[in-house]
Amino acid sequence: MNIIIRKGEKKDLPGVLALIHELAEFEKAPDAVTNTVALMEEDGFGEKPVFRFHVAELDEKIIGIAVYFVKYSTWKGRGLYLDDIVITEKYRSKGIGKKLFDLYVEEAKKIGAKQLHWQVLDWNVRAIEFYKRLDARIEAEWLDCKIDLK
Amino acid sequence: MNIIIRKGEKKDLPGVLALIHELAEFEKAPDAVTNTVALMEEDGFGEKPVFRFHVAELDEKIIGIAVYFVKYSTWKGRGLYLDDIVITEKYRSKGIGKKLFDLYVEEAKKIGAKQLHWQVLDWNVRAIEFYKRLDARIEAEWLDCKIDLK
Repeated sequence: MNIIIRKGEKKDLPGVLALIHELAEFEKAPDAVTNTVALMEEDGFGEKPVFRFHVAELDEKIIGIAVYFVKYSTWKGRGLYLDDIVITEKYRSKGIGKKLFDLYVEEAKKIGAKQLHWQVLDWNVRAIEFYKRLDARIEAEWLDCKIDLK
Repeated sequence: MNIIIRKGEKKDLPGVLALIHELAEFEKAPDAVTNTVALMEEDGFGEKPVFRFHVAELDEKIIGIAVYFVKYSTWKGRGLYLDDIVITEKYRSKGIGKKLFDLYVEEAKKIGAKQLHWQVLDWNVRAIEFYKRLDARIEAEWLDCKIDLK
């Protein structure tokens, strides 16, 4: 398999959004995705880009993504938040996720981030095992709070 | 009481950090704060600012803060993440937090945010009640994952 891991480009966004939809299905929230390619173009490549990403590509198809943004912690300072890391089902357990995660760590160090931060669903045992192997601190004490804006 | 609620400035940072330390004491993690005024000056007012904040001021003393940054959700798009909202103990339950929260919502709408997002500790009953009154969706299903970088 000739899998290419590289920085994400504008042309990758339809493939990225397809994987985001696949993740939402897996996370039992298929209707929660309101994002679109047009919005992603603006938020990733517009005047004030918010997110950046890496992709895993095989035969010109996006089979894996890691999407992140610069975050801030009043306790620790600048950090890099991993909003999503997704490998399409067929290609899991082949080390692609680890390669994408390593690039995320590299990117974080490059911007002087003091902390990596992300979330995982409490029933996603496979992902939790993966993160434990990376020596992540996993805590149930923090509740997630959200308000959607119209 | 002549409390002024306004946008945070560089000169406020020592007072802001003092409140961050007060919060860390309250959250039972007094040693977790490694942030400094110098780092905050860079992250808030340097070449690439990451966070912005509002303050509540009384007699030239900072008695409340709300600190946030632009975040990204692959599902929803651009959002505004509230990293901390703190009112010094003496001035709680006087509506200052609500005023700061309202400004946070206003700021989010201004940048076209699709979602407000923050976290609360599961034992912080008073804060949870406050957020419930704001109609926030509070979920225990997401576990928090972190790795500190050297």
